[in-house]
Amino acid sequence: MKANPPLATRTKNISSSAIREIFKALKDPSLISLAGGSPAAEFFPLQTWQDLITVCHQKYGARLYQYGITEGFDELKAVIAHRQSSHQLTIQPEEVIITTGAQSAIELSAKVFLDAGDKIILEAPTFLASLKTFLLYEPQFLSVEMESDGVSIQAIEEMISLHPDVKLLYLIPNFQNPSGVTLSLEKRKAIAQLLAEKDVYLIEDDPYRELRYDGEDLPSIHSMIPEKVIYIGSLSKIFSPGMRLGYFIAPPEIRKFMVAAKQATDVHTNILAQALATEFLLSEEFAPYLSQMKKEYTARRNTLLSALQKYFPSEFSWTQPEGGMFVWCTGPESFNATETYSKAIAAGVAFVPGTFFYAEEGTHHNTFRSNFTGSSSEKIEQGVKLLAHVCGA
Amino acid sequence: MKANPPLATRTKNISSSAIREIFKALKDPSLISLAGGSPAAEFFPLQTWQDLITVCHQKYGARLYQYGITEGFDELKAVIAHRQSSHQLTIQPEEVIITTGAQSAIELSAKVFLDAGDKIILEAPTFLASLKTFLLYEPQFLSVEMESDGVSIQAIEEMISLHPDVKLLYLIPNFQNPSGVTLSLEKRKAIAQLLAEKDVYLIEDDPYRELRYDGEDLPSIHSMIPEKVIYIGSLSKIFSPGMRLGYFIAPPEIRKFMVAAKQATDVHTNILAQALATEFLLSEEFAPYLSQMKKEYTARRNTLLSALQKYFPSEFSWTQPEGGMFVWCTGPESFNATETYSKAIAAGVAFVPGTFFYAEEGTHHNTFRSNFTGSSSEKIEQGVKLLAHVCGA
Repeated sequence: MKANPPLATRTKNISSSAIREIFKALKDPSLISLAGGSPAAEFFPLQTWQDLITVCHQKYGARLYQYGITEGFDELKAVIAHRQSSHQLTIQPEEVIITTGAQSAIELSAKVFLDAGDKIILEAPTFLASLKTFLLYEPQFLSVEMESDGVSIQAIEEMISLHPDVKLLYLIPNFQNPSGVTLSLEKRKAIAQLLAEKDVYLIEDDPYRELRYDGEDLPSIHSMIPEKVIYIGSLSKIFSPGMRLGYFIAPPEIRKFMVAAKQATDVHTNILAQALATEFLLSEEFAPYLSQMKKEYTARRNTLLSALQKYFPSEFSWTQPEGGMFVWCTGPESFNATETYSKAIAAGVAFVPGTFFYAEEGTHHNTFRSNFTGSSSEKIEQGVKLLAHVCGA
Repeated sequence: MKANPPLATRTKNISSSAIREIFKALKDPSLISLAGGSPAAEFFPLQTWQDLITVCHQKYGARLYQYGITEGFDELKAVIAHRQSSHQLTIQPEEVIITTGAQSAIELSAKVFLDAGDKIILEAPTFLASLKTFLLYEPQFLSVEMESDGVSIQAIEEMISLHPDVKLLYLIPNFQNPSGVTLSLEKRKAIAQLLAEKDVYLIEDDPYRELRYDGEDLPSIHSMIPEKVIYIGSLSKIFSPGMRLGYFIAPPEIRKFMVAAKQATDVHTNILAQALATEFLLSEEFAPYLSQMKKEYTARRNTLLSALQKYFPSEFSWTQPEGGMFVWCTGPESFNATETYSKAIAAGVAFVPGTFFYAEEGTHHNTFRSNFTGSSSEKIEQGVKLLAHVCGA
């Protein structure tokens, strides 16, 4: 007897609506949102982008609107390869595959690697949208704890000893979403070593790398051991999320399957968006724009951190991100962020309860994620004050 | 022992490279291509589109570049709902979900419906990219033969009797890719009846509907029985394939899962593309553009059909499409289109061997697909002449 409608087993995995209900509440424009992960759209250089679209029409003509190749727009692949090359590793344009947002690159990785029941090691907490994406392929999640300098290496080693058949490790090394934590250089080297020794591949999800506000840029794990890493980048944070542009760099024997999977998923990525990104990243306007955004985000992060200090009860603690978009807050065991959510919405402020960032449902109710890029410093201060009140200050 | 790299079972399904090698040959610009399915880019109204992008910047501002909602740009949903409504059926904007090309809508349908081994009935031949997309979900294909007025109803009925657990039926009712055949009104009614009686859903893939050159528009099967149909449309044929815009309309209990799957696949579709499509479809320029394209395609189809008649050996036959982009050619049993391919390339003309459009590999070598939209009438005539020579004329 078929179910009605006769849907796939995986479909039950994507039916959870709790988080969707939370994001629905965000549509109210009077709400102060510390929930999303949006860039500060009020600083978008709209006139520059419009002018560059005109340049694209002159340079590329009908090519902007015709079918393109699955691998991506050659000019954008070259620009990204150049930006992604480091003193340790030169990336060739043909190694870069453009995707419809970084989320699509995560989806393609899961698609080519995961059979139902396959094992994947994740940071706990981890990016909730990646959890949903992986769930489409019905894996078994193995969570390992985060420390202040990134995921626990010992916990990963123990997990691999316990589960030698694990296929993938999924990490967000820079200013992790949701924790804001950055993986230290020592731990990056330890993971590269581990990848060299074990039969495990790494998905290195790195959308925030260029949003560093303090400290020094750290080399990617990909640059240390490219033959075992699917590196995923995004243009959503340094250009525009609405354009849906991401990319991956993977060993050739994996890349060819991910390209075939992309062809069977969305054929290729929007061409005009790829051309505009090319022209913007090459333009004189790009560097000042990125530094203006970083300056603004630094101020907003500082406001969030001082407001938490100023208004929150002393039994709460939070991370000190060197970049990215998020601060992770932990309350006392008695605190329940999931239950507090509706009170916060009623008070006029939104956040994301931490429980949604864990593979194991219904845990870590005393945590929440707070974003600092999508609202002005003034709103952030006001939002934290309201939230602190709801949280018992 | 894990394979190295330890890829998923499905990945072996997408590794076939024969068709990719064929499309690679098409990069040679001196080749006359009857192979692809591209629109006539030389008629793209580039200045109009550039001007409308300026209008979009004025009307929508930063919204063009910020995150959007998964379901799509509200204004485009409304325009499509209006165009898609018929005297039989009114479509509401919230019923239309925008996807990253129609291919993505096919992928999402497969994703929410198909467990490995699930059965899906297909026309034989059918669209080769859909075969690749379905293969990602490891189904069992059940092929039913095409007749000159569309798929055989009797063959479908027999297939369902034989396989009562079949989940899906996949049809391209208008000017089918690759056959060019259109499903008759009587057969559409018969399929609607069959869907009403059986526990089977239909994926109605309808990208070419607006490219009709002769005869009367026929109602979609979706308009007859919307509760059992996932209707898929495309803007690639009437606007631009490079924009990657498609859509689906599905019953609410399926739509919600396909939206959740889309969120976990590419988050949402490019916003600027959706805004530009909205403005173009609403503009005064759209109707004259579409009729110009149809006039040109009519001429090209007529050229292809007369050239086949003029140059091809009498033991070849071909379809007489009332619209769309393709003519399907069948040679005598002794003819092998797959083997002829390299000779044709050497002679300067490309086509697609028919065998790639069948779920069962290595069959129907005496057939091929010929496109008439991507080359000028002059080139088509020249190409058919060259091809006829290679085919033994």
